[in-house]
Amino acid sequence: MKIKVGVSLRHVHLTEEDYNILFDEDLTVKENLNQPGQFSANQTVTIENNDKKIENVRVIGPNRTYTQVEISRTDAYYLKLNPPVRTSGDLSDAEEITIIGPKGSITRKSCIIADRHIHITKEEREKLNLTKDIYQIKAEGEKGGIFSNVKIKEAPNSYFELHIDSDDANAFDIKQNDKVDIIE
Amino acid sequence: MKIKVGVSLRHVHLTEEDYNILFDEDLTVKENLNQPGQFSANQTVTIENNDKKIENVRVIGPNRTYTQVEISRTDAYYLKLNPPVRTSGDLSDAEEITIIGPKGSITRKSCIIADRHIHITKEEREKLNLTKDIYQIKAEGEKGGIFSNVKIKEAPNSYFELHIDSDDANAFDIKQNDKVDIIE
Repeated sequence: MKIKVGVSLRHVHLTEEDYNILFDEDLTVKENLNQPGQFSANQTVTIENNDKKIENVRVIGPNRTYTQVEISRTDAYYLKLNPPVRTSGDLSDAEEITIIGPKGSITRKSCIIADRHIHITKEEREKLNLTKDIYQIKAEGEKGGIFSNVKIKEAPNSYFELHIDSDDANAFDIKQNDKVDIIE
Repeated sequence: MKIKVGVSLRHVHLTEEDYNILFDEDLTVKENLNQPGQFSANQTVTIENNDKKIENVRVIGPNRTYTQVEISRTDAYYLKLNPPVRTSGDLSDAEEITIIGPKGSITRKSCIIADRHIHITKEEREKLNLTKDIYQIKAEGEKGGIFSNVKIKEAPNSYFELHIDSDDANAFDIKQNDKVDIIE
């Protein structure tokens, strides 16, 4: 069964309160994402750990009930952090990181590497018979292979899509909107 | 069957002639690599494409009969290049890139993304019964999976080792000297 690829580049989610510490302006939509209601904002931040920083990290809106920084392992080596692989919203053992906006900065135990996951509605899941909680994804090509531990993330108003990070995409030489296979 | 992981970071191989355009000093050993005779040199270069550059790219010695720049897909996006996936020494369709040393600079059709491969001697290959030319590699862990198209690279004086690039290693969260499985 084929599924469309969504590549998550490094990004941050912010609480309303944290957003207002970092920015004076309103959060505004740069581009809508495939997941309904979610958008890439015009606002960006700098993320920093000691003397290492990465600029122009996109804020993803709308604001959430938690502040979370999602980076790749490549970014983590550069920032000298060792974040755990987590499902979005699970900040257990998350790394402390500083987030800098044009107005102010915050330091939060908020940095993770996102797990691989598939967004799907309950209805679609039943229709496609994706009853298991974890699948594997196979990609063709010279640098292809199989991703293990891809979690099913069922929620209303989901757009059926695989989310992987930039390391996964670049290792397998796959891009946004490519089609890959869900296997057992 | 287990095999040790060697992670190839971005690096360059140079011909004697090109080396002497870039450097005034002799090529010197910083650290011996696992492959007998091969070493990470004290010398580094900057690689550049138009307005994008990456500094401190290690020269791997000894000098060879070809000049070759090996980068990851992540580097390629940054440099705005689209190099092909190639076995070392095969520069067909390689991207043109500028290599800058302390003495001078060269521009060569030399940039590739290295394929995944296994170094092995003829004797070890027979002993381990690795008769096929291509295998798959499986890595455990939360971000584990399988690499397809891993080529057997038989040569005298080889050290039995899997070579993958930094994108592959970071996607699967594996490191230099980790052990992974060779599968059919």
